[in-house]
Amino acid sequence: MVKVGVVGYGVIGQRLADGVALQKDMELVGIADVAPTLSVKALKEKGMPYDFYNANPDNQQLLEEAGIPVSGTFEELVQKADIILDSTVPGVGAKNKEIYQKYGKKAIYQGGEKNSIADVFFHGYANYEEGLGKDFLKLTSCNTTGLIRAIDCLDREYGIEKVAITIIRRVADPGDYHRGLTNALQIEEAPNHQAVDLMTIMPHVNATGILVHTPVTHGHIITVVATPKKKINKAQVLDAFAKHDRIRIVKIKDGFNGNASLFRYARELGNPRGDMYEIALWDESIVESGDDIMFAINIPQEAVTIPETMDAIRAAMEMDTDKKTALSKTNDYLGLGKWKK
Amino acid sequence: MVKVGVVGYGVIGQRLADGVALQKDMELVGIADVAPTLSVKALKEKGMPYDFYNANPDNQQLLEEAGIPVSGTFEELVQKADIILDSTVPGVGAKNKEIYQKYGKKAIYQGGEKNSIADVFFHGYANYEEGLGKDFLKLTSCNTTGLIRAIDCLDREYGIEKVAITIIRRVADPGDYHRGLTNALQIEEAPNHQAVDLMTIMPHVNATGILVHTPVTHGHIITVVATPKKKINKAQVLDAFAKHDRIRIVKIKDGFNGNASLFRYARELGNPRGDMYEIALWDESIVESGDDIMFAINIPQEAVTIPETMDAIRAAMEMDTDKKTALSKTNDYLGLGKWKK
Amino acid sequence: MVKVGVVGYGVIGQRLADGVALQKDMELVGIADVAPTLSVKALKEKGMPYDFYNANPDNQQLLEEAGIPVSGTFEELVQKADIILDSTVPGVGAKNKEIYQKYGKKAIYQGGEKNSIADVFFHGYANYEEGLGKDFLKLTSCNTTGLIRAIDCLDREYGIEKVAITIIRRVADPGDYHRGLTNALQIEEAPNHQAVDLMTIMPHVNATGILVHTPVTHGHIITVVATPKKKINKAQVLDAFAKHDRIRIVKIKDGFNGNASLFRYARELGNPRGDMYEIALWDESIVESGDDIMFAINIPQEAVTIPETMDAIRAAMEMDTDKKTALSKTNDYLGLGKWKK
Amino acid sequence: MVKVGVVGYGVIGQRLADGVALQKDMELVGIADVAPTLSVKALKEKGMPYDFYNANPDNQQLLEEAGIPVSGTFEELVQKADIILDSTVPGVGAKNKEIYQKYGKKAIYQGGEKNSIADVFFHGYANYEEGLGKDFLKLTSCNTTGLIRAIDCLDREYGIEKVAITIIRRVADPGDYHRGLTNALQIEEAPNHQAVDLMTIMPHVNATGILVHTPVTHGHIITVVATPKKKINKAQVLDAFAKHDRIRIVKIKDGFNGNASLFRYARELGNPRGDMYEIALWDESIVESGDDIMFAINIPQEAVTIPETMDAIRAAMEMDTDKKTALSKTNDYLGLGKWKK
Repeated sequence: MVKVGVVGYGVIGQRLADGVALQKDMELVGIADVAPTLSVKALKEKGMPYDFYNANPDNQQLLEEAGIPVSGTFEELVQKADIILDSTVPGVGAKNKEIYQKYGKKAIYQGGEKNSIADVFFHGYANYEEGLGKDFLKLTSCNTTGLIRAIDCLDREYGIEKVAITIIRRVADPGDYHRGLTNALQIEEAPNHQAVDLMTIMPHVNATGILVHTPVTHGHIITVVATPKKKINKAQVLDAFAKHDRIRIVKIKDGFNGNASLFRYARELGNPRGDMYEIALWDESIVESGDDIMFAINIPQEAVTIPETMDAIRAAMEMDTDKKTALSKTNDYLGLGKWKK
Repeated sequence: MVKVGVVGYGVIGQRLADGVALQKDMELVGIADVAPTLSVKALKEKGMPYDFYNANPDNQQLLEEAGIPVSGTFEELVQKADIILDSTVPGVGAKNKEIYQKYGKKAIYQGGEKNSIADVFFHGYANYEEGLGKDFLKLTSCNTTGLIRAIDCLDREYGIEKVAITIIRRVADPGDYHRGLTNALQIEEAPNHQAVDLMTIMPHVNATGILVHTPVTHGHIITVVATPKKKINKAQVLDAFAKHDRIRIVKIKDGFNGNASLFRYARELGNPRGDMYEIALWDESIVESGDDIMFAINIPQEAVTIPETMDAIRAAMEMDTDKKTALSKTNDYLGLGKWKK
Repeated sequence: MVKVGVVGYGVIGQRLADGVALQKDMELVGIADVAPTLSVKALKEKGMPYDFYNANPDNQQLLEEAGIPVSGTFEELVQKADIILDSTVPGVGAKNKEIYQKYGKKAIYQGGEKNSIADVFFHGYANYEEGLGKDFLKLTSCNTTGLIRAIDCLDREYGIEKVAITIIRRVADPGDYHRGLTNALQIEEAPNHQAVDLMTIMPHVNATGILVHTPVTHGHIITVVATPKKKINKAQVLDAFAKHDRIRIVKIKDGFNGNASLFRYARELGNPRGDMYEIALWDESIVESGDDIMFAINIPQEAVTIPETMDAIRAAMEMDTDKKTALSKTNDYLGLGKWKK
Repeated sequence: MVKVGVVGYGVIGQRLADGVALQKDMELVGIADVAPTLSVKALKEKGMPYDFYNANPDNQQLLEEAGIPVSGTFEELVQKADIILDSTVPGVGAKNKEIYQKYGKKAIYQGGEKNSIADVFFHGYANYEEGLGKDFLKLTSCNTTGLIRAIDCLDREYGIEKVAITIIRRVADPGDYHRGLTNALQIEEAPNHQAVDLMTIMPHVNATGILVHTPVTHGHIITVVATPKKKINKAQVLDAFAKHDRIRIVKIKDGFNGNASLFRYARELGNPRGDMYEIALWDESIVESGDDIMFAINIPQEAVTIPETMDAIRAAMEMDTDKKTALSKTNDYLGLGKWKK
């Protein structure tokens, strides 16, 4: 049983903890945060299914006043774990790295941290082998993780030369009050970082794109114009995606009208928090553009990186040196691919 | 075990079914709907925890194509049940009533139906006794249900003469594509129906108010200016609400910044769908206005009527003739009030 | 002086009327509508700069009660005009056509009408000659009009083979209460009609694309992946667009962060209603994707079709048989291209 | 002719400049800002109707590169003016005050500045006399200005003892990218500052209230529960408001569905930027609550304080020592009340 600690119990951290708790060959030794946030209060109201470690000694009293049982300090959590999932706010991870190194522990960072913090920029499907035995891995961001799933899937099946993507980005998560847009689309300087990051993981693909923020909270939509090595048609795209355990094919005609339908569906499935690990591909979005193929996918930003982070633990800890086995375990434990059966 | 059927498996129907399934003295005999909607597809993906009955023979083939196991017809469900929770779209309930009457079954309607459909307009806390043994009950709408919880609570403790309310209404539910507002507040002719409905249930209170729709999905906020029989202060308001199992007192300083914080908190609690049965009162919203008291509450529109509907089953079926016992059972089975312990 | 009547005084109709009033070789003989709408009330408050004709005899009394001076009937307006701009709601135009034919008058329809209503599907820059002397013309919709401006501009300069577009569509106009989306992106079946329409006007270009509705009101954003006949770079794109009087090149670094910045800028320019006739191209959005070029444009949906409709009058009435002269007059009278000087 | 300078050419500053330019007994000597913002660029595109003064020497080159003609420095503008309207971002005004004092010039601040900066907290209708001859005046904020118009109007006619208000606040202006909310209502600690400020200006009225931010941009809506000295009815409320030149009475049944309808109407009136100086009262919102009266008003946040600021110039410069004369001139020059005639 690999012992895993989660540092930073926010939007991503909570979901990482739940993901680890589902892996039968891992043990969640605890989570750490700096204050009695709403997420920590919710943990308490649930009866502390996970042990809490305090990462900010100055807030010990605040935590006590809030009635949060504290199992120890951040450093004590690090000592108990074999590997840390660091999902703190960008910038903090670099400081934490010193502690991980002090105790000789591995760590996996999320997409918000700088690439330089890690030995390798990782994606379970696209470059699993690169992560084997590494000490510090960094996941791709939510958009990039989902995007690579789709591009890598087509690339392995048919070969992809280049992609031009448009990211229609949700600007905040449900419940965010520290950021937001009101009645405005916001464009960023091109190319967007997701295209650049994709090329870091898949250097044989030429990628570029434009990102536009939109005032919604339930998932990004990405349109992709992909140039395959030789022309492929809609049926071939569907074939490739249908085999992928982390991609759902959905239809507008069934009621999947957009990102909010997928969020509602995940809630109705009874998924904790209404989360969805899978990206979705809209069947009716697939069109041919000359020799290119165009389609649209949905990225559930809050949970999409959880499976690839589980893969990363497997790679870093060399739990499974065979990629296929590793991905398959992650998928089984998270229930991915089950919906097809 | 009282046998309950749920007709109409939409936003409310799903939550009613889950609520009934949690009542240890009730049995959910099945749910009915007219088509393989996304909600029905989600039910199937979950492995059909509830039996499905087809309320539209014309769609039998569509349902089969979607792979939905059909346990029988709508009328067969009615026959198996002792009482029906009708959460169909407004207007359909009247037609269904003929079927319920044909088989001598009781039914409980949600707030969207006309008052004339029912023998009594019902609220668990405010007029439980009125529902005892009745055949057809109609619940108050989501806003009115939550509002009455708060007003009735203060009224029983201190006596309330009149209320002037402002409803800041969420305009759609998450995932709705058939309605919505974009960058607009919409005002309705005053007084709003919630104030009028409140007076139907609590005829000794004078109520009026203004309703404004806002482009959000996670909960209504109502401000109340209440005139008590004799002046009360903030501490007294908090005292009364603190005893109520269906009202949470929350603080802005803890991070409960608005309706979206409550939705996020409910998700993080692990509540199915991120639902919350309780209304919330903001501690920092309570102010005195001369001899009046003013405060703001949050109404989680998707799930707020579930507890009162469970109460309604108890009343209609005379499972508990004592109100206190009835409410207490509903609360226990739904886990209400547990957070205080 | 060509005499022009405007039928349907809504979002588009008002702007058409203003546009005609600015053309020194046209005379606005009046506008017609069916009721004392807010737009008609605003016209009255402004002192009736345009004569109003009543298109619904049943509402004569309503109009009088609202104090709207009525100059005659719809048919009287048709008789006084040489050509009608029909901007009624989709479907009404077909019925009106019988009246136009009865009096031997030409008419120009907006993009919402069916193509079959018109002799030609028209765009000032892309197929001016097709409209010469025709009786019934139909403009392209707002998105298509702006998109064709951009594609035609590049096509004439460098040759364009195909385009794959992503339309990030504003879902409602400011002040709309009859439609809207709340916290949701909505995807439509591909290819979108704008791509199909583009091919009707520019049959030598292969076009396809995906459309996603977003909950904003101030302008669509379209990303274009264009395949030129031979590779072009960013500077060449900027060169071509810089010469176009109906395209503005804007920069994020100057504060043009998105569609809402352009709306604010147009308001601050003092343009009536804060309207803008020009589409905008974001300088920093232009990127190369292999041999393709990718960029993003903004479409101010309320006013963008006005210039091309003025062109259409010139073509239909054969006021200018030479395209360059015609476009130049429209541009001069509307003040287009002035900002460069 | 009183010489007026405007310092800070943002959302409010632009409108102040336009307002001054319309006063026949004032002269706008120029405006000052610190950089070639979009608003300054729009001024240039309009042909520099107002002289620009540079308030940040470090940006002289940036301004030149942007082609903005600079007429002098901030201090030179102060010297040329008799009085300054300071609409800089909060905090800057205090520093600027030293310059105004150095040259012995009066200044008027907007609502964002601290009260301590000014000799008097001013509202044209409610306390004109307090401003007479003062050196430093501070206007109330947009919500408070509009709210006081309504309360003062009723108070003078019937006497008002107390008010309990609910502010449904627009969270950003059109074009704002530095702030926003997405799918969230946000509540603030009560009482809101507007109620407190109202009591500063109208100390004989007891005021309190709750403020909720909403994700829209076109105007705040305030509901008011007012306790008059003796009971008044709807007709009396309408009578009082109908006489006020800065209040419009509007009806939902005419199409004034909410804040966005009022914005659209102002655009359609041809008002520059689609601005509206008047607050609006919804006829159908007026209801009696026992002896209280309840109603809803709309506050067009961008322009509502302009008339009262013009009043403030008149008071500070003692242009009109008689309040009625002063208000009447402001109203005439801004065209207020004209719509009734």
